[in-house]
Amino acid sequence: MITVLAGGVGAARFLEGLAAVVPGREITIISNTGDDLELAGLHVSPDTDIVIYTLAGAINPETGWGLAGDTFNVIDQLQRFGYERWFNLGDRDLAMAIHRTARLRQGWPMHRIVEELTRAWGLELRILPMSDDPVRTVIETPGGTLAFQEYMVRLRTEPEVAAIRFAGIESARPAPGVLEALRSASAVILAPSNPFVSIGPILAVPGIRQALAETTAPRAAISPIIAGQVVKGPAARMLEQLGHEVSAVGVARLYQGLIDLFVLDEADADLAPAVEALGMRALVLPTLMSTPERKRALAAAILAALERTP
Amino acid sequence: MITVLAGGVGAARFLEGLAAVVPGREITIISNTGDDLELAGLHVSPDTDIVIYTLAGAINPETGWGLAGDTFNVIDQLQRFGYERWFNLGDRDLAMAIHRTARLRQGWPMHRIVEELTRAWGLELRILPMSDDPVRTVIETPGGTLAFQEYMVRLRTEPEVAAIRFAGIESARPAPGVLEALRSASAVILAPSNPFVSIGPILAVPGIRQALAETTAPRAAISPIIAGQVVKGPAARMLEQLGHEVSAVGVARLYQGLIDLFVLDEADADLAPAVEALGMRALVLPTLMSTPERKRALAAAILAALERTP
Repeated sequence: MITVLAGGVGAARFLEGLAAVVPGREITIISNTGDDLELAGLHVSPDTDIVIYTLAGAINPETGWGLAGDTFNVIDQLQRFGYERWFNLGDRDLAMAIHRTARLRQGWPMHRIVEELTRAWGLELRILPMSDDPVRTVIETPGGTLAFQEYMVRLRTEPEVAAIRFAGIESARPAPGVLEALRSASAVILAPSNPFVSIGPILAVPGIRQALAETTAPRAAISPIIAGQVVKGPAARMLEQLGHEVSAVGVARLYQGLIDLFVLDEADADLAPAVEALGMRALVLPTLMSTPERKRALAAAILAALERTP
Repeated sequence: MITVLAGGVGAARFLEGLAAVVPGREITIISNTGDDLELAGLHVSPDTDIVIYTLAGAINPETGWGLAGDTFNVIDQLQRFGYERWFNLGDRDLAMAIHRTARLRQGWPMHRIVEELTRAWGLELRILPMSDDPVRTVIETPGGTLAFQEYMVRLRTEPEVAAIRFAGIESARPAPGVLEALRSASAVILAPSNPFVSIGPILAVPGIRQALAETTAPRAAISPIIAGQVVKGPAARMLEQLGHEVSAVGVARLYQGLIDLFVLDEADADLAPAVEALGMRALVLPTLMSTPERKRALAAAILAALERTP
């Protein structure tokens, strides 16, 4: 069983490659729900849904989120009732939010809902929310506190990040199966997601960081930073604003003590010694997942390296 | 102030005519919420919304419900999660249900929500739900109990109706403003709606029937039955199955003691004496509301007759 800690777009691309080289029933994904939001009273789980849609081959390839060919008639019409339209949820995408919300109102725990949604999309792999309890990523800026999606979508990551908090984290428990998926895995992979707001909330759920630190499985992380840049999202900016080195090494340092192997892009081969000085092996690979072949090759190479990890 | 007790399609057509001859701020509509339903966890108020959409000029003229030019992408997609698609709610129509549900979750009473929705559609008149409390029309059939929309939409009114109940009615209170709108009206009109499942639930809310019986305002009802037939819906079938005369007289008898004036179609002119024998005046008019002119003329003629009613 391979367990992957996953955020949204970057993780979903990596998982596409992994699912192409490993049977779905051998994959468990621990999904970030810190960026969940309520929109017009509906519960939306952007990271989980990006992973599901991508693996189901239904994702909008141009945006990396939402469903290909979706329409936006509901969200258009909601403006009549005073809703702002900065979070763009398509009509078919909204059906997922409607059903998730209906299940929550019926008292279903999130892990059961995500399991049902995963099956409804015909996927065999297992997706676990990091927690059944609500956790909300909060961005502290000099101008005040922002909900994560306000920072990310409404304000396009423009405000300076002073600190990141996870509201509700103290009382959040790992969803059933999460700790076991870390302890009994044959390998654990931290996807090339934002270390602060995608992997960060997962690790912050009490018990998860320790289970990762203590598992006997070999563990790898893939740098979302290539040559000091990020493919998508605010990871580079956050590294800088929070006082970290803006490089793959800066990311590796955040995972010190938690991983055995750190995957660097070829463009960062010169950083391998600095990574290894942190007490982990550096693995230099082509990490830009621009084609299905590259995605598969990346997953296969990481699995092979993990198998060789004692 | 003119107060109208209203169901869905037939009432909406009559109200179009009324709104064309009376300023909106002088009209109060008491709307049936007995046919409300939950669809995928969303609260839908079909009768109230038909009235709003019709008066806003946004109704689908072919169906008499839903919005003109609406799409059905959400409801299509909901089938992935196991929902049956017998209740066809359009995407823009669904935005109304989403917002109504969000407000209910925020603790808003239905009358405040309906007021907000009415304003959001640019209407000046006042629409009051019959009650803020949930009331559900239930159809008893030889084969068992059916929720109203199951009977009406899913089973296309085919089951035999043995009895009609209004679940929750004992503890339902008239929405704020409802009794006052009956007591202080200058005229009260029962729209040409189904007497059992549109006007019936409104009259069954404790206090409403009595307020109508006791108001000093002149009161009229319009027959939804013309020449023993109904323009739309199961009113004729229900009259028959529940042991009533299938005619305008059968309807008039249901309103005995509650109205001063009963409006019959020209095709039923010969029934006028039988209506008057019930202790109400019969008013024979062209009641088929097939054009805007006919709608206006019907409303104007009824108002004129009510003004002459002592």
